[in-house]
Order: sequence, then structure tokens, then C-alpha cells
Amino acid sequence: MQTNNTIRTFFEPRGVVLIGARSSPGFGYGIPIKLQEQGWEDRLHLVNPKGGRMHGMPVYKRVSEVPDAVDLAVVIVPAHGVPGVLAEIGERGIGHVIIESAGFGETGREGANLQAEAEAVAKRYNLRVLGPNCVGVVNTKNRFTTVEVIPEALTPGNTAIIAQSGVFGNVLLDRLYYDSLFISKAVTLGNRMDVNESEILDYLRNDPSTRVIMMYLEGAADGRLLYRTLSGVTRDKPVLILKSGSTSEGKAATASHTGSLSGEDKLYGGMFDQTGAIRVKTLEELVEFTRVFSTQPLPRGNRLGIVTSSGSLGALATDAAVTSGLKLSPLSRSVVDKVKEGAPGWMNVKNPLDVGPSGKFVSALTAFMEDPDIDMVLAITIIPYAVFSLFGQIGLTGDMWFGDIAAIRRHARHKPLLVCVVGNREFVRHMSEVAGPEVPVLESPEMAARALAELWRYKRWRIRNDIK
Amino acid sequence: MQTNNTIRTFFEPRGVVLIGARSSPGFGYGIPIKLQEQGWEDRLHLVNPKGGRMHGMPVYKRVSEVPDAVDLAVVIVPAHGVPGVLAEIGERGIGHVIIESAGFGETGREGANLQAEAEAVAKRYNLRVLGPNCVGVVNTKNRFTTVEVIPEALTPGNTAIIAQSGVFGNVLLDRLYYDSLFISKAVTLGNRMDVNESEILDYLRNDPSTRVIMMYLEGAADGRLLYRTLSGVTRDKPVLILKSGSTSEGKAATASHTGSLSGEDKLYGGMFDQTGAIRVKTLEELVEFTRVFSTQPLPRGNRLGIVTSSGSLGALATDAAVTSGLKLSPLSRSVVDKVKEGAPGWMNVKNPLDVGPSGKFVSALTAFMEDPDIDMVLAITIIPYAVFSLFGQIGLTGDMWFGDIAAIRRHARHKPLLVCVVGNREFVRHMSEVAGPEVPVLESPEMAARALAELWRYKRWRIRNDIK
Repeated sequence: MQTNNTIRTFFEPRGVVLIGARSSPGFGYGIPIKLQEQGWEDRLHLVNPKGGRMHGMPVYKRVSEVPDAVDLAVVIVPAHGVPGVLAEIGERGIGHVIIESAGFGETGREGANLQAEAEAVAKRYNLRVLGPNCVGVVNTKNRFTTVEVIPEALTPGNTAIIAQSGVFGNVLLDRLYYDSLFISKAVTLGNRMDVNESEILDYLRNDPSTRVIMMYLEGAADGRLLYRTLSGVTRDKPVLILKSGSTSEGKAATASHTGSLSGEDKLYGGMFDQTGAIRVKTLEELVEFTRVFSTQPLPRGNRLGIVTSSGSLGALATDAAVTSGLKLSPLSRSVVDKVKEGAPGWMNVKNPLDVGPSGKFVSALTAFMEDPDIDMVLAITIIPYAVFSLFGQIGLTGDMWFGDIAAIRRHARHKPLLVCVVGNREFVRHMSEVAGPEVPVLESPEMAARALAELWRYKRWRIRNDIK
Repeated sequence: MQTNNTIRTFFEPRGVVLIGARSSPGFGYGIPIKLQEQGWEDRLHLVNPKGGRMHGMPVYKRVSEVPDAVDLAVVIVPAHGVPGVLAEIGERGIGHVIIESAGFGETGREGANLQAEAEAVAKRYNLRVLGPNCVGVVNTKNRFTTVEVIPEALTPGNTAIIAQSGVFGNVLLDRLYYDSLFISKAVTLGNRMDVNESEILDYLRNDPSTRVIMMYLEGAADGRLLYRTLSGVTRDKPVLILKSGSTSEGKAATASHTGSLSGEDKLYGGMFDQTGAIRVKTLEELVEFTRVFSTQPLPRGNRLGIVTSSGSLGALATDAAVTSGLKLSPLSRSVVDKVKEGAPGWMNVKNPLDVGPSGKFVSALTAFMEDPDIDMVLAITIIPYAVFSLFGQIGLTGDMWFGDIAAIRRHARHKPLLVCVVGNREFVRHMSEVAGPEVPVLESPEMAARALAELWRYKRWRIRNDIK
């Protein structure tokens, strides 16, 4: 294994050559267009045996003809052509290759032989290879992408994606932006002929634009190495992992997908627990928990305060929180006093706090955020949409019902705060604005409670391992 | 307990009086407006001690002054006024009352005393009472509603909602329509001074417009009665139940909410299992599973076939399906032959079937739907949005990639079929159109697999109890 420096070239090449550039729609057609749009035209070169021009650019017939400094090659030629192309790349002195072509180890014995052949060529020339059977990388900072993504996916953020599967990474990029989850870097690993998840994790650990790492894994390339790597990375950054292949049927599915051996699920569970990695159970948890980890501080303890305008959703969140290891501790005297001031007689001032139509939501939320005996807060801001619309006509907005949540967050930065909204999509959108970019709005009370519990689990792991 | 006939009046009154009608925004202000919009003006009367006119209608000072035939009263006066109002209602000879006012048993001892007082009055006049502390009913067929709902919520459908909490029912109505889940009837129970969930279940069992019942419960009004009732209703219709209060903290929360004793969670678990009710674990499962039950037939067995364009999502769905009790059985000879015809050499024809970029999705899905050895099908239709958009420019739409799913459904009505899409919201919307109203599109592969597993669990319960 080489140093991080070598991984960096995949994300920050000085010059790139795309080998197998195609003039008609098909896999990889849009890559040069996307790179042109993002300002990479001067650092991009196209190669195709037919030559001519494509996308307004000259097309070289051979890699050796490419004139400028190039340190990264992106390969999209059919699988059988890959070994030859790798030799050309090596001869040209290019050290890094992303092989996007599929049809290797994931397809059976013939493909595995081809992959071994390609690997031998890569070794001979000392190439660092990402893939095959992947879609490469995205770096939102320099707007470099080897995959056709929508423009919103290139908005810079603090979250890195490692996906073993190309499609998986791609569909995440297609949807995360509307959950206000933005990306620092994304990488898809594919069959991992050379570069594996551990090297990428090490690289991202030192990447200043990455705060949180989300990962989809079918199986470790090297289990011991992953164990060692995770133990280190999680000291600095949370790593959320969705692993498939927890059943033998699921394992069989991954074998033909990225040629992975997904191994014994219990061993992975143990590894993630011991190394402080956060294992999620579903794709939805991966997205929702990452939204929370990428915006919230870690809690000091496990005492949750719930302020809600809906008793039922408060009860559902409470069940989920307690089942996941959080405590709903009794409210301190000072919080009770603050909330009771001016509250109607019927109001039970306790935790979870169902404010009902008392008008006390804002003062309760503020008191909860200020109270040192509450380590994290869930604000469930529910109102029937017809009522909200009606009062909207006389100028009432979400912050008047539920507080200027973005400002409340700014005044208590040390404490996790989530908002849960269930109801009309327009109201959810409105409350996302009220909550601001630093407070995620979740549409599931149970998911919100579980996400807070995971913040605490990670914090507890850090405490037990004497980290910070 | 009286007959179903008596419950029917809550949903199909001949005439209604709203007692406590208010002229300024506040709880219940919008009810007369909503009823006017829906064509109820001639059958609606308003009462308020101030008299005058409101919403263009005369306001009577006393219930006794209301001229026409009225068989249902909706009460929104403050709690302390309720016993007196109930007496007026009884004197006027109105037999059914929905008390929407809060401030009774859910608020502590004083409120409980008030509720007992109201109950005594109701008994004296033989009134049937829904509530207090609820928002009453919605009937999409005759467009009768005692709650301010958005217009979309009144689109007639086949699903009934029973919610113990008013707000809970209301927020469901605010959002279900955009999941294409439409309602036959909705009822919120509140403190259940009189009418309880069992009577409603019995009524809905015989309601021809209801195919599926979804229920939010904090605790049974009468556990034995609920057991007996569920055992009967589930013979005819699936009942999906979300129950809060599974922890002692959650229980405490429900006590102050609708004054419920939520009881031992294990007892409820046992009751639901034995009676064939479908217990869901989260609000999201309640919605997603109900979407599936309200559109899909029950499977003949537990053999699931998965066709996917994403290997990773196929593996995740497989893990969830197997863990939930489904089998991914080997494909029959005839399916393998059909799919292999014209397929590229690299394609592994097995179950789950990852078609990759083979172009074989449509023929595979068709073969799966036709094969007698597959009892239900999950179609995972994933494509990066940039690719979809690019091909969209030359006229390719979702049905060309993944088949005319609505038509495929029509040709194999006996077999559950779900679509899973993860990715850009526009693509999800597009695929929902391709799938048509009879095939739900879910955005979680695990949720889709679990929903299919629940269809099978319910079917297995029916088989074991010799039903149909």
C-alpha cells in the first residue's frame, strides 16, 4: 500500500485522459460534457481509435499521442480491451487509472481471468487502479467528476461517500441534496483490483473538507486492515456503514455484483462495534443518520428532552428513544418553572412535554436547550395543515408557532437538536426553512429518536476509549 | 354496546349542529367553512350564545332553537361547558355527539371529574358520544368532515383510519394523498368516554367502501373486547396497528395524552399475532405497509422474485426479505430460458436478478410475473438521473427501460408487485406514473421487502385459520 498522497491524485489530478470516449449515447457518454461544464476542458483529453473530434474537442487515437501533463486515466472501453489500454497508460507514464468498465470478476470465471490479466499489467507498470466496475470519483471542491451527476450533487458539503457499487453511489448523489446533505468527496470502489476501502478511509481521515464518512460495503477487501483502519479513522471522524450480505442469500447476491465475499455478518457487527463505526440497518438510516451526524455536535450524555405539539408522536418517539438506550429524565425545577409560567392549568409539565395548544412551545424549547440536565433535544412540530394555512392568512408562520429554531440552535451550539415534522409536504418544507441548515428535519419520530441514540452511542465509545 | 347502525350516524348524519361555532380563528373555526365547501350547508346549523350570523349562516343561541332534523351534534365549547351542552343536546332529542373539546381525563384529576360528569349526562339521555379530545370523523363518500382537512384528503379511497389521537389522524390526512393512499373513512377516538375502537372496527368491517383498516392505538378501551373484535374483523379485512406505549416512559406519555392505560406491550403483541392483526413498528411502516395492503392481492406463498437494475439494492432487499421470512427460490428453467434469450454472456440469471445494463429488465419482469413458482415480485428500477435525463432527450421514458409496469400488473392481477426507486425525486415521480395506481412505488428496498413479508404473514394466518 502506498501513501495518501497517491490516493489524492484520483481526486485532484493535474490532467485527465478519458479512454474510450464515445460519440453516441451510452455508458460514459456524458463524462466529458460534465467535465467541460465544470471547467475541466483544458485539463481533459479524449482518446478513441477513430480519432476526429467529439464534444468540440480533438480526439487522439492513442494514449501516447496526448500532448499535455496527465496523471489520471479514466477507462470506459469494453472489458476485453482493458489490459491493452492499461499497458498504453503505463507506457505513457500515467500512474493512476479509474477503470469504469464492467465485465470482470463480478461475472464469473472468464471475467475473473480477464481481471487477473489486467491486474498483472497494472502491477508491471506500478499503476494505482480504482475499479474496475465502478464510476470513479466526485470532488465537489475542485468540481472534478468521473461520473455523470446532476448539478446539485456538486454543491460542496462536509460528507464523504464510499460506495462499493457505482450505481449505489450515483443514486445517493441523485437524492441527498434535497435532504440538504452535501458532499465533500464520493468514491465508488467496484471490484477493488487495487485501491480498497481502507486506503480511501485513511485518505478521507486527513481530508479537511470531510467531517463525516458514509459507506456502503458488501465485504471488506481485507478484514484485518479494515479493522485497523476503522479503529483509527473513527477517532477523528464518524463513519456510518451500511453493509449488505447479512443473510446467505444476500451474500450470494453480492458475489455476482462486485465479486465480494461478504463474510460472516456477526464478525462485521463485532468489528464495527469495537472500532466505533456506526452500523446502520437500512439505506434510509444511512441517509438520515448521516444528516444528523453531519450537522449535530455529540451529546454530553444520554438524557433526551422531547417537546412536542402532538402527544401521540411524542409517545412514539419516546418508545423509540428508550428502546435505543436514551433516557427521558425528569425535568429540573427551573425548566418546570419556566414552562409553567403562563401555561394553562391542564398542561402536564413533564418529559416528553406535550404542549398541546398551550402556546408554550417556544418557551419550552428554549428552556430545554438551556437546561444543563438535558443532553439533547427533539422538537416535534406538528400542526394540521388546514389550521396552519388558515392562520397563515393572518400572517402566522412556523417560527411563531414553534420558535425561530435556527436562532435557538445558534444560541446553544453544544447540544444536538432535531426537528420532526409529519404532515403536508409544504409544511415540512416550510419548517425546514425555519429550522435552518444546521437543524435537520426528519419525517419519522422513531428515526429521529434513533439517530440521537446513535450520536450518544458514538460519543460513549469515544469516552470509553479516552478520546477527546 | 349498540349496533353498527348507531355508529353509522357519526359518518352519515341527516343533519348536524355545531355547538360553540366561533367567529374568529381558533380551534374548530374552519369546520363550517369546510362543510359548506363540501355541500353540507343545508344540513348544517350553528349554535353560539351570541347569536347573529357567521360564515353567511344564521347562528342559533340555543340548541333547542335549531329548526330542522338533526341527528348529530359536534361540540367545540370549552370543557367546563360540555356537561350543560350535553343536556341541551339530549333535551333536543339528538342522539349522537362528537365532543372535540379537550381538557378532560387526559389532564389530571379535575379533568377526570369533569369527564365523569359529562358521561353521567350522556348516559341519562342515552347519547352515543365520540371523544372528548378528538377531531371526529371524515367520510369521503358523502364528503362529511368534522375536521379541517385539505381538499386532497377528501379524495375517496379504500382505506379507513382509526386514530386514538386527533392530531395523529389529522396529519395522516395531510400527507397520505401524496403517497397515493386515499381514504374511505377516518375517525379519531380521543378519550373514548363511550364509543371505542372495537365498535368502529365492527362498523368498518361492514363498510363496503373500506378494504383496509389502519389504526393508531395507545391502549385498548377493553382488551377482551378488542381481542374478540379483531379476531372477527381480520377474517374480512386486514387491520394494521401502530401501538405506542411499548416502554414505561412511552406509557406514561400516553396517560397524559388520551388518558390511556397502554398496558403490557407483550400482551398486545400476543393479541395482534393471534388475531391476525398486522402490527407495525413505526409510523412510516404504518403508511408504507398500508399502501401495499390497500393495492396488492395476497400472495399464494412466500417465494419472492427480485428483478433489479442495481446489484447493491437487490442485495439489501434480499437481506431484508429473508430476515422477514420470505424465500428467494431458484428460478425455474422456463424463466431462466426466457431471460437468457439475447442476454449478454456476463449476466448471471438467478434470483435476485441483477440485469445490470443488459436491457433485459422488461422481459425478466414479465417472466417473473408469469412464473407459477414465484409468489410475489419486487422490481427495483434504478438509473442514475443524469443518464435518465440524457436518454430522455432522445425520447426514452421509464417504461422503455423498465416496462409498462401498469400493464404488466393488469395482466397478472393475482400476484403482489411492488416497485422500489431510490434516486432523484423527479425520477421517483416519473416511475410512479409508469407503475400506475395499482403498484406502489417505495423509496426503501428494505421497507418494500418487509411489506411483502407482511402480506405473506397475513396470508399465512388466514391459511392456518382456514379462511377462504
